[in-house]
Amino acid sequence: MGEQHDGLSGVHVVCSSNGEIQLLMDLLDDTGIELESSCAGNGTCGKCRVLIISGECLPPGTAEMELLSPKDFKRGIRLACHCLVRGEVELSVENAAQDLRVLEKGMLTDFKIEAEISKYQLISTGNEQELSLIEQILQQLNIEQSVPDSLDILRLIAQFKPDDTTAIVVGNKLIGLEHGDTTAHCYGVAVDIGTTTVVASLHKLDDGSELAVASALNPQTQYGLDVLGRIQYAGKGSNNLDKLNGLIINCLNGLISELCRRSGIDSQYIYKITVAANTVMLHLLLGVSPVSIGRAPYHPVFRQGQVLAADNLSLMASPFASLYCLPSVSGFVGADIVAGIIASDLDGAEEIVLFLDLGTNGEIVLSRDGKLIACSTAAGPALEGMNIACGMRAARGAVEEVWIEDKSVLWRTIDNAPPLGLCGSGLIDLVAVMLECGLLNSSGRITARNKFAGVYPHNPLAGQIDDIAGKRRFWLIPSLDNCPNGIFVSQADIRQVQLAKSAIVTGIKTMMTENGLDEIHVNKVYVAGAFGTYLKPSSLIRLGFFPESWHDRITFVGNTSKAGAVMALLSSSTRCRMEETAQKVNYVELESCPGFEKMFVENMRFPGKE
Amino acid sequence: MGEQHDGLSGVHVVCSSNGEIQLLMDLLDDTGIELESSCAGNGTCGKCRVLIISGECLPPGTAEMELLSPKDFKRGIRLACHCLVRGEVELSVENAAQDLRVLEKGMLTDFKIEAEISKYQLISTGNEQELSLIEQILQQLNIEQSVPDSLDILRLIAQFKPDDTTAIVVGNKLIGLEHGDTTAHCYGVAVDIGTTTVVASLHKLDDGSELAVASALNPQTQYGLDVLGRIQYAGKGSNNLDKLNGLIINCLNGLISELCRRSGIDSQYIYKITVAANTVMLHLLLGVSPVSIGRAPYHPVFRQGQVLAADNLSLMASPFASLYCLPSVSGFVGADIVAGIIASDLDGAEEIVLFLDLGTNGEIVLSRDGKLIACSTAAGPALEGMNIACGMRAARGAVEEVWIEDKSVLWRTIDNAPPLGLCGSGLIDLVAVMLECGLLNSSGRITARNKFAGVYPHNPLAGQIDDIAGKRRFWLIPSLDNCPNGIFVSQADIRQVQLAKSAIVTGIKTMMTENGLDEIHVNKVYVAGAFGTYLKPSSLIRLGFFPESWHDRITFVGNTSKAGAVMALLSSSTRCRMEETAQKVNYVELESCPGFEKMFVENMRFPGKE
Repeated sequence: MGEQHDGLSGVHVVCSSNGEIQLLMDLLDDTGIELESSCAGNGTCGKCRVLIISGECLPPGTAEMELLSPKDFKRGIRLACHCLVRGEVELSVENAAQDLRVLEKGMLTDFKIEAEISKYQLISTGNEQELSLIEQILQQLNIEQSVPDSLDILRLIAQFKPDDTTAIVVGNKLIGLEHGDTTAHCYGVAVDIGTTTVVASLHKLDDGSELAVASALNPQTQYGLDVLGRIQYAGKGSNNLDKLNGLIINCLNGLISELCRRSGIDSQYIYKITVAANTVMLHLLLGVSPVSIGRAPYHPVFRQGQVLAADNLSLMASPFASLYCLPSVSGFVGADIVAGIIASDLDGAEEIVLFLDLGTNGEIVLSRDGKLIACSTAAGPALEGMNIACGMRAARGAVEEVWIEDKSVLWRTIDNAPPLGLCGSGLIDLVAVMLECGLLNSSGRITARNKFAGVYPHNPLAGQIDDIAGKRRFWLIPSLDNCPNGIFVSQADIRQVQLAKSAIVTGIKTMMTENGLDEIHVNKVYVAGAFGTYLKPSSLIRLGFFPESWHDRITFVGNTSKAGAVMALLSSSTRCRMEETAQKVNYVELESCPGFEKMFVENMRFPGKE
Repeated sequence: MGEQHDGLSGVHVVCSSNGEIQLLMDLLDDTGIELESSCAGNGTCGKCRVLIISGECLPPGTAEMELLSPKDFKRGIRLACHCLVRGEVELSVENAAQDLRVLEKGMLTDFKIEAEISKYQLISTGNEQELSLIEQILQQLNIEQSVPDSLDILRLIAQFKPDDTTAIVVGNKLIGLEHGDTTAHCYGVAVDIGTTTVVASLHKLDDGSELAVASALNPQTQYGLDVLGRIQYAGKGSNNLDKLNGLIINCLNGLISELCRRSGIDSQYIYKITVAANTVMLHLLLGVSPVSIGRAPYHPVFRQGQVLAADNLSLMASPFASLYCLPSVSGFVGADIVAGIIASDLDGAEEIVLFLDLGTNGEIVLSRDGKLIACSTAAGPALEGMNIACGMRAARGAVEEVWIEDKSVLWRTIDNAPPLGLCGSGLIDLVAVMLECGLLNSSGRITARNKFAGVYPHNPLAGQIDDIAGKRRFWLIPSLDNCPNGIFVSQADIRQVQLAKSAIVTGIKTMMTENGLDEIHVNKVYVAGAFGTYLKPSSLIRLGFFPESWHDRITFVGNTSKAGAVMALLSSSTRCRMEETAQKVNYVELESCPGFEKMFVENMRFPGKE
């Protein structure tokens, strides 16, 4: 049994290099196959395993030799990012993008819906004054503003009959004209682009009502699981930035078309799209290179909110639609966090509130009577089930909950499907259970089978520990009919969890120390993001993410990035508030705080057993 | 000898209909041949004569039968606008666009040059603050304005190194970035688009100095000589508007490329283009249908000045360049007249000044202590040498001056080239001479040969009059070796001149009457436009365009449309003044003034012989 799933249940593909020697990953790219890769093709993550069925592959290099076992090679397993092929190759690729569970809702503070976009049917006036056609329309709409400098509008006016035309007005500006009476159709789309998932919702702009929600895996994940992987990929070749940009635009258009299909509306009546996302995702959405975010001094190209013509990015919407990207604080505290601050009313809080968005990057915001301090901490992809031997995203078949009952470790998968792997919440639960049972000590070391059996002589869990070539593992599920490879957690996996935990805890503690606060001062803890929502607070506390005293102060606020995008869609005053707030947030660079490294090492430890 | 030049000295063309029956004009269109046509293909002007050398032509219809003689048909002459052909056809087309004389200069009142566009080389700052790259640039440029919503700029910032980048700033706005130090290169182009000719000049934007001037025939002339012909053509087929738009854009790009070549600059350093033109030409430039100008109540689509990205119209310039179209007063009093008002300081006049732009459309502006009243009058193309049997534009070989000496009528051509036809000034001079010699009476009738010989028995001019099929002609030049067809003026030509004269005189008189003014009150008369510049005031007065008393009050102010475009290019405060002035001008519709028709008939008469 290999240390990874073999992808035998994957997608069958035939591709051809036309006689030349080519990298398998490049060939698969051309076929449009989404291949998982968390290291951007560096040959370090081992996620892009494929099973070669037939065809000529060149002998493996050192990267493949290190990550694959002789047994793997014997079976035909190769890494697509390093395997060179010639001619036609037939293979099987694991499809990780199936049935992904995406968090679509988030806490949303009260706000007033302002119907900024209005539509009016024009009437014939028989005007005899010396006014141009556009002046007559502006007069009828009671808009004083002079002609907007838009060729499109001028060209349309010449074509349209006034008594069969609808004018689209934003504020004091005529933005477009449509044939016929289309006043009943006026929609907008709010989008959250996560590093891993993308969520979009369709709204009526007059009353804000939600008509449909849709979500998808961010197709850029194949070029790196985290923002650093994406930056690295974007900076590598001249076409890579365009490729990442094209992928997310296609993804958004796919979601928009699904939203429209489900609610029976035409995308040409979408006039506004708002997007919340982290800074790197926003750069990629606009086709702006994020490379400067990836190297000191880590400056993004832009931070302020951007208003652009949706048409410029080929987004599926009215030709008059605008795209609004929410403002960011810095390269690593993005518009998703600004959205979260506003959606959870953090800037209006009159107490001490801690806001955490837990994901591959953990962002932490401390609100002290409305004054905001933020930091970002690289938790790594472990909390999303990635870079973990049997890890997987929170999709159907992922073990999402683990608990102990009568000395047995029990588990449950998403949709109660046959188990495929461990997602973040399952992993955290499992580590908590292991700590509780003595399978793991507070330094994070898995107890050896003999030692465990010595301390707990009658505990059958001892049989679930093994050691192979010095690598210790705890088997949650043995190899069974419905789980041919079994599911285990390795010592290396535990280290990943410890790193993630320490990153977050060190972030929280540094922020509090820097502001002279102690755990007792924190009145509320908001945990945002998909990962948090499916977690048990008790497990988080058992691992030491939070002190015991916060147990009743934790609120899971869901996808506040998406909630903020909705607010920006429906309220211009909220958009102004976002711009102001983004400027006000004080960004703290954790690495430069005194004692950071020492604290980071200390926080690797789990709390001792009670 | 035919009534038209035969085009034997023309361009040789082979075109093919691929076996189908097609209109010859459409085939020629596809080859890019500029064919002259003043009736927009209606088959009434007879200008699109071609000489068929070989190939299959279908028999002529009634339009061709009326406009061509049996001799024409025998020689192979056909009208391209009505001649149907099949298969490959070889023919010869007259090239009217050669050696056109274009008026490039105009009166230009004093104004202050404001260097609105500035360029700065950026320097590396090693900024450690939490600013985005764009904020750092704005800070360095001392621009407080927030991020311009331009994808281009964001994308460029990510690519450029600060110490090798030049920023382009307009007012308080960053409009673009360029590689390297390009601060020395900053240019603009001012354009006058006339119905017949297009003139453009290239300027340094810092000191306003003119680097080059170039001009061309407006290539749209093949689809109608006057604005009504163009409107009609644009309204006919769905592609016609695009075709007219494409022709003028190509023409401007041709001129820009010539300007750049002559002055050795790169068009990518052109940041501003300003255009003065009549309202229809502006609509066609922007690809906006002018059809509403051509039918009651004659409203244009737009009147205000338009600021657009030059890139949107594919104009050859910096990708950051703007296009400014000057404001118009109405459908028939365009931005060319607003330019003229400002260039000749009419709005600042402290007396009574009459401004006339004489061309196919005659526009008249009356300034009474700076209050402005304007009207437009359809003079027809006669004054530009069009719709005249032996008429031609003011090009090499055109008879431009005619005078009498010792009972002989003498003449001079442009460049003293062999005579090819009569241009507007030559025609006016000839009519004045004919009136003076008794060849023409004040009702506009050419004296019969016998009658003339009876009154002036020894005057050899009698021999230059003939009558063929009831059509009376006066031959200025007989058929000679260097002028194989000879040059004459027909009774119908005289009627065209009378109509043009009456249109203008009626316009002037109506404006004066409506304002309680008499000829004696007018302090100055400015005559703008190419036609006016080459005219003798004495001839204009002899024909009755102006009263005798204005002889010393007339100033030919040249191409004030172009002069105004230059002012708009170099001074933003002048642009504001233009916008305000265009709003202030009071437009008078001549046809609705009492007694207009009666006055029009009366003004057909020429003043009697002294």
